[in-house]
Order: sequence, then C-alpha cells, then structure tokens
Amino acid sequence: KVNGDRLWDSLMEMAKIGATEKGGCRRLALTDLDKQGRELYIKWATEAGCTVKVDQIGNIMATRPGEDPDLAPVGTGSHLDTQPSGGKFDGVFGVLSGLEVVRRMNDLGIKTRHPIEISVWTNEEGSRFAPAMMGSGVVSGRFTLQEILDKTDVDGIRLGDELERIGFAGDTPVTGRNYHAFFETHIEQGPYLEAENKQIGVVTGGQGQRWYDVVISGRESHAGTTPMHLRKDALIAASQLVLKVEEIAKAHKPGCGTVGFMQVSPNSRNTIPGQISFSIDLRHPEDDQLTAMDADLQAAVEELAVSSGSDINLKQIWYYAPIPFASECISAVRSSAEALGYSHMDIIAGAGHDACYVSDFAPTSMIFTPCLDGISHNEIESTTKEECEAGCSVLLNAMLVMAGE
Amino acid sequence: KVNGDRLWDSLMEMAKIGATEKGGCRRLALTDLDKQGRELYIKWATEAGCTVKVDQIGNIMATRPGEDPDLAPVGTGSHLDTQPSGGKFDGVFGVLSGLEVVRRMNDLGIKTRHPIEISVWTNEEGSRFAPAMMGSGVVSGRFTLQEILDKTDVDGIRLGDELERIGFAGDTPVTGRNYHAFFETHIEQGPYLEAENKQIGVVTGGQGQRWYDVVISGRESHAGTTPMHLRKDALIAASQLVLKVEEIAKAHKPGCGTVGFMQVSPNSRNTIPGQISFSIDLRHPEDDQLTAMDADLQAAVEELAVSSGSDINLKQIWYYAPIPFASECISAVRSSAEALGYSHMDIIAGAGHDACYVSDFAPTSMIFTPCLDGISHNEIESTTKEECEAGCSVLLNAMLVMAGE
Ligand SMILES: NC(=O)NCCC(=O)O
Ligand SMILES: NC(=O)NCCC(=O)O
Repeated sequence: KVNGDRLWDSLMEMAKIGATEKGGCRRLALTDLDKQGRELYIKWATEAGCTVKVDQIGNIMATRPGEDPDLAPVGTGSHLDTQPSGGKFDGVFGVLSGLEVVRRMNDLGIKTRHPIEISVWTNEEGSRFAPAMMGSGVVSGRFTLQEILDKTDVDGIRLGDELERIGFAGDTPVTGRNYHAFFETHIEQGPYLEAENKQIGVVTGGQGQRWYDVVISGRESHAGTTPMHLRKDALIAASQLVLKVEEIAKAHKPGCGTVGFMQVSPNSRNTIPGQISFSIDLRHPEDDQLTAMDADLQAAVEELAVSSGSDINLKQIWYYAPIPFASECISAVRSSAEALGYSHMDIIAGAGHDACYVSDFAPTSMIFTPCLDGISHNEIESTTKEECEAGCSVLLNAMLVMAGE
Repeated sequence: KVNGDRLWDSLMEMAKIGATEKGGCRRLALTDLDKQGRELYIKWATEAGCTVKVDQIGNIMATRPGEDPDLAPVGTGSHLDTQPSGGKFDGVFGVLSGLEVVRRMNDLGIKTRHPIEISVWTNEEGSRFAPAMMGSGVVSGRFTLQEILDKTDVDGIRLGDELERIGFAGDTPVTGRNYHAFFETHIEQGPYLEAENKQIGVVTGGQGQRWYDVVISGRESHAGTTPMHLRKDALIAASQLVLKVEEIAKAHKPGCGTVGFMQVSPNSRNTIPGQISFSIDLRHPEDDQLTAMDADLQAAVEELAVSSGSDINLKQIWYYAPIPFASECISAVRSSAEALGYSHMDIIAGAGHDACYVSDFAPTSMIFTPCLDGISHNEIESTTKEECEAGCSVLLNAMLVMAGE
C-alpha cells in the first residue's frame, strides 16, 4: 500500500493554487495558476528522481527509469486543470497518485523492468478551450497539433499563445508516443460507488460524447413596444431547446444531455434577445443510442427553426464513440483490488478522461474511487484520505503487475 | 416648420459617437462615449445661445431665456444614452428636436414669454444601470439621489463614480425643478403609426412597468456523470420560467413580458449550471392587469421552486403604474399636428420615457413619429428626415402654444 498521508498532503498543497472560498479550486487550463500547478508538480517529480519532459502541446512527462531502457513505459497520469468552480480532486488525484506510486517505489527500493511515466495532460476539462482531453487527444492523433493550437477561448485568446506565454510549449514531439500499459486513477464523479458501497470502481470503458455549438438568431427589438406576436425572441427559442435537450436525454436512459454554457446578446433588460450562443453536451454508453440522440436533436432543431421563425445554427464540434478498455488492464485493476482486499465493482466512466484517448494507442484501464454524494465539477467535491489511499494502492499494484518487478 | 435638413445633419453627426458596424449606436450611460455625446450637445446648445447647467445626477439643462424671467420654462428633451446595440434615433431625436426648436426660434427671431429649456436626462435606457429613466426619476422624486448614485453595473462599477469620472456630477440641485409644460418627441419604437399610416402619434400616456431580478440556485455537478433524475439544473428551471413569462404576457393582452438579460454560472459546457441570474420585464397599459401579471409570476415562481427543487429568489426592483398625460398638453400636440396638416392618431407609449416621470410635477405630453417596421433597440432602427421634421415641427408649435409668443 502507498503512503496515504503523503498523498493527501500533496493533494492539499496543490489545492492551495487557485483555492476558492467554498473550498474548491479554480485553475483553468493555461492560466497563470495552471502554470503554478505545473511548476509545483515538476518540482515534486524531479525531487522524486524523475526526468521531466514537456511536449509540443504542453503535456508533462515525468519518467522513473526502468531496468530495461528499451521497453515502453507503463504510464499513469491525469490533469491539473480544473473547472471554473471545480473541486480539489478531479484530475489532481490521478496525477498525484502517479507521483505517490513513484515515491512509494523509491521508499521500498522497487525496481521495475519497464520505466514508469506520469503524465500531466493539457486541458482535460475542455471548459476554457473546447473540446476536452486535448493533450491526450493530440498524442493519440484524434486531433492535429495545429488545430488544437489554434483553438480560442471565449475572449478569443489562442491556446497556442497561452501555451507559449506560460512557458509550456515544449519540444518533445507529440507523435510516436507508446506505453506498455496505461492506468488512470480518478474520483468517480458520479453516485454509483457510493450507492453500492464499493471502494474501487474497475473501469471497463467510457461512454461516448457529442458536443455542439448552437447559435440562435432572432431579432432584437424593444421589450415594451414590440407586441408579443411580432417577436422573434432568440431566448424563447433557446429555452425551448434547453428543455428539449433534457427531454431527449431522459428518453434515452441512461444518456445525459446538458446545456452548461450560454451567452445572451445584447443582454439588456429591455431589449428582446437577438442572439443566443450556447453549448449542448450529449452522452451515452451505447453508440447507437448516442446516434439516436443526435438524430432527435437535429429533428428538434429543424422543428424549432420553423416554429420560432429564428435562424438556428447547430454545429457538432466533438464526437467520440464509447471506448472499451483493454481486458488485460481491466484484469490487472480487478486483481489488484482483490489482492488488497478492497470491495469493487465494474463501472463505465460517465466523464471523458485522458485514458479514453490513450486507449487508442496503448492497453488502458482506469481505477475509480467514490466521491461524496457523487458530486463533482463543484467546489464542494469531496473524498477521504482512505478512499484516495485505496485507489492509489490499487494503481501501484496494477502498475507493478504490468511493469514487472 | 423646422429645418429638417439641419435636424437630420445633427442627428447624423451625433450618431458618429459610438457608431456600430451595422449602422447603429453603442453609447452606454456614463461611458466615455456618453461623455463625448454630452459635450457635443453642450457645444451646440451654447452656440445656439443657451445657458447650460448640469445637476447632481448629471442631467443637462440648456435654457433659452424668455421675456418674463419669473415664469417657469416650457421644457422638452430626452436622452443621449443608448442600448448596447441601439439605434441612432431613440432618445437623440428628442434632444436634437429641442435644439432644432431653439435654432428655428433664433432663425425667426421668435421671443417667448416663458423660457425654453432642453434637458438631456441621465441614463434613460436602464441597460447599463437598472432601472431606466434615472435622471428624470430623481428630479421627480421617484428615486432619491443617493439610491441612484449607489447603483452599480454588472461589473460592480458605481453610477456616482462614473458620473464624477466623466465630469458630469454637477451642482444644480435635483430638487425644486418646475415646468409650465413639458413635451418629448420620440420615435414610436413600435408598429402602430406605420400600420395606421399616420405621421404623428399624440401620446396620451405611458403603460406601467414592473422589473424584476431573479436568481435561481440549483446544484453544480458533472454533465457526464450526474444521472438526469439526480440533477438540480438551474438552467432548466430558468428556461421554464422564461417560457412562463411569455405565457403570462400572452394571457394579458396587450401586455408584454421579456427576459432580456441572463447570466449563467459557472458557464462551463460540462458542468450543470448551478446559478442563473436574469431579468424579467412586465408591462401593461392597465394597472390591474399589470397587478394580475405580477400575481401570475409570483405563483409561477412558487410552483417552479417546488417542481424544480431549486431555490428561486424573485425581487421586484422597479414598478410604476400607467401614467396619464395632461389634457392641455395632449391637446396642444393634437392641435399642432392638425394645424400643420399632419395625419395623427392617439397612442399609448409602450416604452418608458423621461416624460412619464416629468409628468409627476408638470403638465406633460409626447409626440411620436413612425419608425421602420416598428423596430427599436436594434442597430437597424430607422426613420426618415421627413418624419423627423414633422415631429419636430409639431414640437415647435406645441411649445409655442404653451410658451406664449
Ligand atoms: N473528468 C472530467 O471531468 N473530464 C472533463 C471532460 C468531460 O466533460 O467529460
Ligand atoms: N425609450 C426607451 O427605449 N426607454 C427605455 C426604457 C424602457 O425600457 O421602456
């Protein structure tokens, strides 16, 4: 087992960077705070004897040498960026679990045949820059480096420029990466482990996602003088679509549908909104169901364009099909949990994770741990030292299984 | 009749300050652009022989002396501030009509018994700082000076500080103001004059308004891992209320109901919105109907709080009952339109206007002119030189009726 106290202390130390009043973290991708988090991590990894490299999309790779330098590393890692009002554990737990694995191997003088590599992936959250899982997506080849460098945030700031600015536009190529196996520990972010009273989630795959940008264009006019029947109120149409997204998700259990981002223009109390920009996020563990949700959405948009008289532009900006993890890695996680005497259950990841994209080019699985009330993407996100220690101990064992002592 | 070309040229000159790409104006209250507009106006008024004063809330009064200095002035005026994406005429037409009246009196060497006073009222739009008609509202006593100075915009900037900053915190008291009569010319901003093919709207009063601030608090959580039935999505509840506001307005013809402003928090694509702040604007020409709309809104909010499980805070921030104008002023407008041979009709103002508040302490009416497709609070707001000339000529005549040659 790992040193739960040390892991917890590191989590609490990292959480100071971007700490929010309600006990959460705001450390958006490629901001000054993200830079500070990255620098603290590099300091710790170096102190633990790792060699650190940064690649062209800003991913940080810390390597503990193996006995056979020709073998591909066994990898782990996650992300340090957070939601605008995020928690202390989402992502960070996966990164610092990797660090604790290395520290524990050092404590015990363990040597592995394969090198051990801990990655910090750039912009996993997809909140400041959409879509999510960009660093791992570039390495897996799902995205080209250039398209990602050219992404802009809501203020028009270019990702590539931010990467340069914070000093994390590295020179290690994003191509040709390889792992013998990859594991990511993460809080579940959902309610199932807690409901089933299990310590470990053996993650067998991730559900599929479709993200969209929508722009509804009505007609601005005066809130006091424009009779109700002569309006083209873009917010009325947007509200109808928000409710439709919920309806579509509920009709495709256990799918999810969410509008999380919305901007109203001109956003003046006494002007009928002329334009609404918003996001739609659809998810389902089965691809044919996700396709059906997409079809329902397209149909709803067509219908609404007619009924509202507004112009509706729906653009899919991201899609990936459900991702099955590798059976040998799933087994390594399950057997490690059993060996350590932790209760466990198989689970599908509801969130996207860097492991999903790593799984494109390397055998991969994930280790989930419970979080209080299943709440994540919220400052009150909470888990315990014991839960973290359990997840990290399973990681250590699973990595040892694959890395060979 | 007035000099329509000169009036039009002044309108086009003023429209350059804050001109937008689509031919409109963005000159928000108490910004640098508002300051520039005010300064241009003061230059013109001074050139036309007026004495200029600024009061404690930043209203600008330009006075052309009368023959009897003891008599109360006959007033006119409107506002120079605009919506975020406003037109060239809303407000400005009323101010520059006043200026053209003075210029025309000067051309013709007309002397009046009563002084003529043209006011530029501070923050009529209520867009940057809510509510609307602040300058006239402070002078009428509807608002205290202090409460208005302490209002803040969405970025927390204080109105009083902005007034100081742009150099328009004057020293003329806001109390004790008086008019023998007051007239305001304005584009109709609605569709009725155009539909009835009339040149002049004889405004008999203004409809009542209620403005609200709403905050809906749900629970932030992850868009991919939170099952639909476990969500407290504040945007779902807000969308339902937006549609309810429309329904309430439609059920109380010819009432209006609008949500023009909305802010989503944390506004992240993959986080279920935890908090939505938005405005509601309800209007009706009859007070008992406006009261009924308010009651329907309160009931809808109570119901929604239960059905959504979210916390809903509804706060009325502004109310005024429908305002009847003074019969002698209405008659002066009507008879001037007839004398000049303009087609006309009686009309109720759908928008709030400074004249509504001036009417608290002085006999008042308004003169409306058509605008293209009834569209205002939009950059494409449009009217013609001839329409402006007609409205301004009626103003000249009505003011002469009351000011005594
Ligand atoms: N783990 C996590 O919250 N990832 C963000 C990407 C997503 O929305 O699934
Ligand atoms: N005239 C005008 O647009 N006034 C703004 C105040 C209102 O919303 O009625």
